[in-house]
Amino acid sequence: MLPFDILEYQNRLRETKERMEEKGIEVLLVTDPANMNYLSGYDAWSFYVHQMLVIIIDESQPIWIGRYQDANGAKATTWLYEENIIPYPDYYVQSSKYHPMDFIADILNEIGHGNRHIGVEMDNYYFSAKAYERLKQKLPNATFKDGDLVVNYVRLIKSDQEIEYMKRAAKIAEKAMKKGTESIRTGVRESDTAARIYYEIISGTEGYGGDYPAIVPLLPAGERTSIPHVTWTDRTFQEGDAVIVELAGCYKRYHVPLARTVTVGNPSKELQKITPIVVEGLNEVLDSVKPGMTCGEMEEVWRKSLQKHGIQKEARLGYSIGLNYPPDWGEHTASIRKGDTTILKPNMTFHLIPALWFDNYGIEISESFRVTENGCETFTNYPRELIIQSPYRIDKQDGKIS
Amino acid sequence: MLPFDILEYQNRLRETKERMEEKGIEVLLVTDPANMNYLSGYDAWSFYVHQMLVIIIDESQPIWIGRYQDANGAKATTWLYEENIIPYPDYYVQSSKYHPMDFIADILNEIGHGNRHIGVEMDNYYFSAKAYERLKQKLPNATFKDGDLVVNYVRLIKSDQEIEYMKRAAKIAEKAMKKGTESIRTGVRESDTAARIYYEIISGTEGYGGDYPAIVPLLPAGERTSIPHVTWTDRTFQEGDAVIVELAGCYKRYHVPLARTVTVGNPSKELQKITPIVVEGLNEVLDSVKPGMTCGEMEEVWRKSLQKHGIQKEARLGYSIGLNYPPDWGEHTASIRKGDTTILKPNMTFHLIPALWFDNYGIEISESFRVTENGCETFTNYPRELIIQSPYRIDKQDGKIS
Repeated sequence: MLPFDILEYQNRLRETKERMEEKGIEVLLVTDPANMNYLSGYDAWSFYVHQMLVIIIDESQPIWIGRYQDANGAKATTWLYEENIIPYPDYYVQSSKYHPMDFIADILNEIGHGNRHIGVEMDNYYFSAKAYERLKQKLPNATFKDGDLVVNYVRLIKSDQEIEYMKRAAKIAEKAMKKGTESIRTGVRESDTAARIYYEIISGTEGYGGDYPAIVPLLPAGERTSIPHVTWTDRTFQEGDAVIVELAGCYKRYHVPLARTVTVGNPSKELQKITPIVVEGLNEVLDSVKPGMTCGEMEEVWRKSLQKHGIQKEARLGYSIGLNYPPDWGEHTASIRKGDTTILKPNMTFHLIPALWFDNYGIEISESFRVTENGCETFTNYPRELIIQSPYRIDKQDGKIS
Repeated sequence: MLPFDILEYQNRLRETKERMEEKGIEVLLVTDPANMNYLSGYDAWSFYVHQMLVIIIDESQPIWIGRYQDANGAKATTWLYEENIIPYPDYYVQSSKYHPMDFIADILNEIGHGNRHIGVEMDNYYFSAKAYERLKQKLPNATFKDGDLVVNYVRLIKSDQEIEYMKRAAKIAEKAMKKGTESIRTGVRESDTAARIYYEIISGTEGYGGDYPAIVPLLPAGERTSIPHVTWTDRTFQEGDAVIVELAGCYKRYHVPLARTVTVGNPSKELQKITPIVVEGLNEVLDSVKPGMTCGEMEEVWRKSLQKHGIQKEARLGYSIGLNYPPDWGEHTASIRKGDTTILKPNMTFHLIPALWFDNYGIEISESFRVTENGCETFTNYPRELIIQSPYRIDKQDGKIS
């Protein structure tokens, strides 16, 4: 049932403990669902309630603590002994009176770890301000430490098995991009294209299905291409529209994102002018990647490439990717941007998305890649260009399904 | 462009300020994306970075503060004046050095509100422990108050326009349930059924498309029906399988969830026995609903109905629903459970999901409903029974799309 060999989980745990030791953390409370999965295998849409994995530096197994009805899921999806799965009663869920962290603090006290150096994931979505306040109140003898990103940094370099899963995600991303962009024609609703993309992402390939990505397909069209992060509407595509498609294939929670810009009919003069500049910059960055380089140096290659054409835009060009859950497929560790000193190593994996947004249009052409021994290789093999669609609907190409 | 009349947003704001006043909050920092949308219209998948709406009790308009590249989205989707949209530079994003809350605290100081009684959404996914720590550090003269759920409680009673959107979501839920369950046949992969459901949810109806639900379709099958919250796998359905399908239609971010249990071929003896008990209990609860009753009293009706059959299970039966974003479509206010003193009023809306999970099977048959002047009405019209599918694949019924 487990997607990785037990030894791989134990290696991850060992590396996590090494980092805990460096930071003086004896007990790490892991609340990020991706980190929980990474260390234990736990996989369920239960992260909307408080739950965690407790990593104790001198104990061989993590402890899962979560909602009563999710304990069966922990038994089914993790390598933990059943006695290390501790459920809290349902009356703790979203209550004004009871808080799951009170229960968890009691457990930590009971098992003798309430007075130790406890690391918490300070800036994670799933560790709220109140969670922290309740823990501090109930564990007055603990010393709290910032344990944010401790596990995320272990995730930075992928194993061969993780790369294999990302390659599968890449196949799904290619298929979804192909079928999705084919459906972008005059008169087709944005929502129908989004539906088509979602269908392809989840149905995957003949050999394997896909998993839900941590971000929905993004599909700004027309003037909204100047607005990243808006989702689809019921507007129909018009001749002359540009459409940005940003999606990810996902397999066993491993993501490979891919973005392309599409036009319905002939592209605008602006897009015709900017596209070769973006592709050239993207190629130059990919050509430059090699172990030993820093993420900041990658940004410099891009910046200089743009400067040749008189363009100055400062933004993050990309980020580390892999295992994740909503709301973000980025790992929150290495960023491809000015000043990032992360040194590239083989099997680090990134989404390179040097998007440009202007006042009334934008362009995204991206690649996800893995650092190799001598350079890099992209996960997907998809034409690195503006996709120009004939505006007219051709039978069976409107994305609709009977 | 706005999904509601400007007057409706202003009413919501006025009610929020009344609640702020009751709690002694002068400035409310709204970080829940559903609350941000509810008050301003803001709608984008940008909640994976820190952002907020600042509600100042003596100012007529909220202030949106978010990432630079998302400011265009705030201009396009809200009713706010452009001068009330304040972007922070990209180097604040997921950085170990800079934190968006430092920027936000500076703004609050500059505009003269840094020393007031500031409410923060203490237990929200999008207000992390670190966000709170940074604010406290940078605003030493502020008095912080727990502003959790202040806006959520305003959301509890829906307007007629909100109900209208939920009725549209209901039509989508019915269609997705029909097409999804039709595809559950021997030999079909769970992932293909999930893909089909997603397709229907997003493509919606002829008249309007759907929005992404805050939770993915849940699809535990076989023994995994004893495990709520697990998602699909590549396993193929087998004759004799039970499958729980829990999904929501979503329109303009308003959700109507619906759950049914399906069997491939003849149902097990356990399911045959438990189904009429669940349906009877569900009917008795729905028949009892009327304004003036409490949520706790609803749970009592269910508990007594089960007791007639010698079953005792204590859990939350349901929760308030409406506008939402991942990771939860519940509103975190009223819960249908023992001791909840929320008094039902017309246009409150709930998902009533009296699920039962046993050691190796489970059952879910749910209804979403609105409280009316005299009783309640369900949003969806879907047979309230176990769905028994012929195990054999019939042409075009395997959910696959060419």
